[in-house]
Amino acid sequence: MERKFLMEHESKDLLEKYGIRTAKCIFSRNLNEAITAAKNLGFPLVMKVASRKIVHKSEVGGVRFVYNEKDLVKNFEELMKIRGAEGVNVQQMFERGFELFVGVAEDQQFGSFLAVGLGGVFFSAIKDYSIRLLPVSRKDLEEMFRELSSREILMKLDTEAVINLLLKLNEFVEKENVIEMDLNPVFVYKKGYVVVDARIVVGKKKDFSREIRKVILDPESVAVVGASNNPRKVGYAVVQSLRSNKNLKIYPVNPNLKEIDGIPTYKIEDLSVDLAVICLPAEKVVETVEKLVGRAKEALIVSAGFKEAEVEEGKIREERLRELSRNIRIIGPNVFGFVNVIKKINASFTPTFSNLKAGRIALVSQSGGICHYILHKFDVGFSYIVHLGNRCDVDFPDVFDFLEKDQNTKVVAVYVEGVDNGRAFFDGIRKLRNSGKYVVVLKAGKSSVADVASLSHTGSLAGDYRIFASSMKQAGAVLVEDPVELIDSAVLLEKYGEIKSVAIVAIQAGLGIVAADIIESRGGKLAKLSEKTLKEIKNILPPITFRENPIDVSASGLDSEKLRKIFETLWSDENVGVVLFCYAEAPPVWIISEDVFKKEIVVWIPEKRLKDVVVFDSIERAAKALAAITKCF
Amino acid sequence: MERKFLMEHESKDLLEKYGIRTAKCIFSRNLNEAITAAKNLGFPLVMKVASRKIVHKSEVGGVRFVYNEKDLVKNFEELMKIRGAEGVNVQQMFERGFELFVGVAEDQQFGSFLAVGLGGVFFSAIKDYSIRLLPVSRKDLEEMFRELSSREILMKLDTEAVINLLLKLNEFVEKENVIEMDLNPVFVYKKGYVVVDARIVVGKKKDFSREIRKVILDPESVAVVGASNNPRKVGYAVVQSLRSNKNLKIYPVNPNLKEIDGIPTYKIEDLSVDLAVICLPAEKVVETVEKLVGRAKEALIVSAGFKEAEVEEGKIREERLRELSRNIRIIGPNVFGFVNVIKKINASFTPTFSNLKAGRIALVSQSGGICHYILHKFDVGFSYIVHLGNRCDVDFPDVFDFLEKDQNTKVVAVYVEGVDNGRAFFDGIRKLRNSGKYVVVLKAGKSSVADVASLSHTGSLAGDYRIFASSMKQAGAVLVEDPVELIDSAVLLEKYGEIKSVAIVAIQAGLGIVAADIIESRGGKLAKLSEKTLKEIKNILPPITFRENPIDVSASGLDSEKLRKIFETLWSDENVGVVLFCYAEAPPVWIISEDVFKKEIVVWIPEKRLKDVVVFDSIERAAKALAAITKCF
Repeated sequence: MERKFLMEHESKDLLEKYGIRTAKCIFSRNLNEAITAAKNLGFPLVMKVASRKIVHKSEVGGVRFVYNEKDLVKNFEELMKIRGAEGVNVQQMFERGFELFVGVAEDQQFGSFLAVGLGGVFFSAIKDYSIRLLPVSRKDLEEMFRELSSREILMKLDTEAVINLLLKLNEFVEKENVIEMDLNPVFVYKKGYVVVDARIVVGKKKDFSREIRKVILDPESVAVVGASNNPRKVGYAVVQSLRSNKNLKIYPVNPNLKEIDGIPTYKIEDLSVDLAVICLPAEKVVETVEKLVGRAKEALIVSAGFKEAEVEEGKIREERLRELSRNIRIIGPNVFGFVNVIKKINASFTPTFSNLKAGRIALVSQSGGICHYILHKFDVGFSYIVHLGNRCDVDFPDVFDFLEKDQNTKVVAVYVEGVDNGRAFFDGIRKLRNSGKYVVVLKAGKSSVADVASLSHTGSLAGDYRIFASSMKQAGAVLVEDPVELIDSAVLLEKYGEIKSVAIVAIQAGLGIVAADIIESRGGKLAKLSEKTLKEIKNILPPITFRENPIDVSASGLDSEKLRKIFETLWSDENVGVVLFCYAEAPPVWIISEDVFKKEIVVWIPEKRLKDVVVFDSIERAAKALAAITKCF
Repeated sequence: MERKFLMEHESKDLLEKYGIRTAKCIFSRNLNEAITAAKNLGFPLVMKVASRKIVHKSEVGGVRFVYNEKDLVKNFEELMKIRGAEGVNVQQMFERGFELFVGVAEDQQFGSFLAVGLGGVFFSAIKDYSIRLLPVSRKDLEEMFRELSSREILMKLDTEAVINLLLKLNEFVEKENVIEMDLNPVFVYKKGYVVVDARIVVGKKKDFSREIRKVILDPESVAVVGASNNPRKVGYAVVQSLRSNKNLKIYPVNPNLKEIDGIPTYKIEDLSVDLAVICLPAEKVVETVEKLVGRAKEALIVSAGFKEAEVEEGKIREERLRELSRNIRIIGPNVFGFVNVIKKINASFTPTFSNLKAGRIALVSQSGGICHYILHKFDVGFSYIVHLGNRCDVDFPDVFDFLEKDQNTKVVAVYVEGVDNGRAFFDGIRKLRNSGKYVVVLKAGKSSVADVASLSHTGSLAGDYRIFASSMKQAGAVLVEDPVELIDSAVLLEKYGEIKSVAIVAIQAGLGIVAADIIESRGGKLAKLSEKTLKEIKNILPPITFRENPIDVSASGLDSEKLRKIFETLWSDENVGVVLFCYAEAPPVWIISEDVFKKEIVVWIPEKRLKDVVVFDSIERAAKALAAITKCF
């Protein structure tokens, strides 16, 4: 299907068919037609140059207000002289309303999306618009309005009518094959709206369908092609990693050695395994994978030197792998591996990861460096660690599908640099959420420089961050800003599930203020305490303290019984999602009884280990993760 | 001087006196005057209702375009019927330009400020404006324009003319006692501008002058009033803190005891000391301070129960202290104290602070909790720790003045909740900067809730964060978002001074991308590497890596000689401010020689101690502090 520009009157006629109200116009090729049109519509009128080439009519003087036939004749002639003019549209004049912009376009990664915001001449300068992928729900639209700076003006007008208009676009865009549409402006009134100008392009939509195939993260037999007995080689490290699991059948492959560290070596030709880990120079990888077809169900390629490299051979090799992946699943290339922490299978080149603590958080990352960073920093329980690297075959949606069905995982923490098929990524996250799991996402490449760097890094195109962020909100994922927030948020979701608001209790007022400030300034939610709660807390605490949220308990908080009562009061308030307690040790050192803490989130400096509750070593970390989560729910 | 509203024609006449171009208008009380005015100006004209009571003329239908005398008569009559009409202004019609808003107002904390931004009907909805305190410099104005979303449109027009207009306001506002002014809109053209509407209020400006008096942070003799030998009392802790300094003369005061921990006690009547620390119940404090006048130069009041308390007595007590401070300097009340780390004087109730590491960072904080939080978390060298609490007398500007003259301090880290005299705060920071010291500021109360909480906490009014942030930028302070950033930024400024840009070198690309992303998305600056540098780095590194900023050195970075060459190349590039190196340990564990690091900032996980360079335990911390600093310089 060819890309086809509709003229203004054609665009409006099409919209009208779907019950969308437009400023109908009559296309006139000559003066007589214009005069007839004017007689039908009645003065005053607007005359606009009609052209498929002119995008901004006002800028070329292509919009005229006419009050009588004399005006009409003069303006018709002038408009027809504008370069590119194919005719003149004669249109009824409408009272000026709030100028809304409604746009539809196709993103290369995410497909059709809707943009709604402040229209008119300020559209491009102010950029006050909000985005969601199509189709949109009423809830999506309400969220979009909340994101607009100009919502104050818009909310006084007929937003219900606008919502109805926008909901119609779901079907309209799909059925009419709209790939681009600008309704700018749409005049919005106290009652109703009218689409004043419309520009539509129809054509063939990009196909985002993608087959999800099973990924193996629980192999029973693993070959290591390029196994080595030199401790400085990756092929040695991988064998060490795997050996920590005594039940795993390991098949080292190295034609020059009879055994490696006591394990006999094998020939590729004799293999029949679930997984083959390849630790060979890049130039040998393709032929090896060819040989492995039918002998291994999945190949994990540690080797680098593929599309991430600046050399042409790398790209050719990766293309060959992509073709081979029809017959064998491929993870990588350019990965350090994966760890199935539940089953203690460390299929990676980092032997220390054999001893990770088991838990319900899965980490799926495009970068191996970020995995190492996180696993060094956090003493947290994980279910799986999966590094995807170049993703010539196995990609995020495949791993999401695996995790969706996995009973051991409650939270999926995702580090992504760029996505090729954002729509499939979005769908995968939606499915995870629908299956009751939580998803936290960190996207690198918010800035232009990181974009280019990650392009080189994993050879993928990092799209516009705004579309990415909007789509994650739409999918129900918690979006965070850095790796520490990624894991902190995952830890809180694993422990507390959905968190809607935070009540803060601080021994020192300053700490509570800083925490409240971080949460609010990042768009998170502080609990609005009920009247009953406020009254009860006022009874517990002396009047020298601040007894709203954040609650400054001051030295009274060092009295365990008072503190216990405050916590109980807060927990019984249905407006309270979680309680965040902050304390930096200072004299007098009365001891708070540890059994006071049942389900609070605690910042205790210097860090104190407590049972049953999540303890952070900084206010900033606790508050930032809580901001990210409460903003989402 | 009374508050006086000028009428539109009076406002414009006044502006014209200063060479500011306005759409001059003729004030007409009756139809004859209006007709005469029209004859002088010539049609087409604009007629506007003239009234000191109507702020938004358009909203009441008070602006009319008239093309002939008949129009004029009809419109004159209609305009005069508008409630509040005192007459009609007749004005020449101007071509519509970019609608700029220029406003002047008086902030209760900071005094006169200028706001410039997008005018017209969008002013209040879009809030696209930028603020600076008056007077402004050309540099300030250029920065203001850069902050506007609508700068793209404005920059194509005659900004030079606008700058000249705005610079004239420095003198205008001062000499004419302008306390409020709206020039909205000012039409800006490709050539020139015209002030289309003007509303001015003159009156008496608030006086922000404040005497700076010497604060004593290096006492040689210290009394402790309310000293105790009960280890659970504050009066015991303070004596312990002071005793760590053997040279200090300590005078415990307690009428019920002969000695405390081996030191004989004294009567207040016999004292003659530099400093008296008061650890008594609130109700005894005022009479004690009265007695101390003439016997102590300065009183540090640890006791709480003053204006921060909800009770009326607290406010009365604080007012009495304020009066007494004419005769004795007072720090507090409601403070944990101060520590002069250089001279090892710990005048606080936290004995563990006697052993702080000496350095060139002074921490001045309104919250004692934040001081404890920071001193527990950071193993960093400080010159002074000063807690200001309620600030009934000694306030930020006094401490800034002390530090300005102090040779031991290079960086001043400030935690502030609210300021009463923001202008004096601003001036104090400017003076610190002018004396060559660096200032980092964390303001609590960005959000509304924190505002109210800090109001209770230290009884001060936290003003609009936007004015605060703008004034800090104007004063040359680095503005940060949380306590960790506060100290991290101070550490970097102490070590590296002004930092203009960052070059990132990462062993794992993902870490470099995350760092770059944080820096750029927060408005910090990444170094633009010179052609020469790029070429040299391409010669050092293989083509599989990303060799721009951030530089992905990959495994080549584990070769100490290559890494050294890269660092040297970067340091010789004048576009590079600092080099940030990132590494999360991963096999193969080749060792990087430690002597490679000369002046880099290093993130090495798990943290490695290195001589001579600043090491961070997270990418986030390094990148956020570098973002805050490079954004400022």
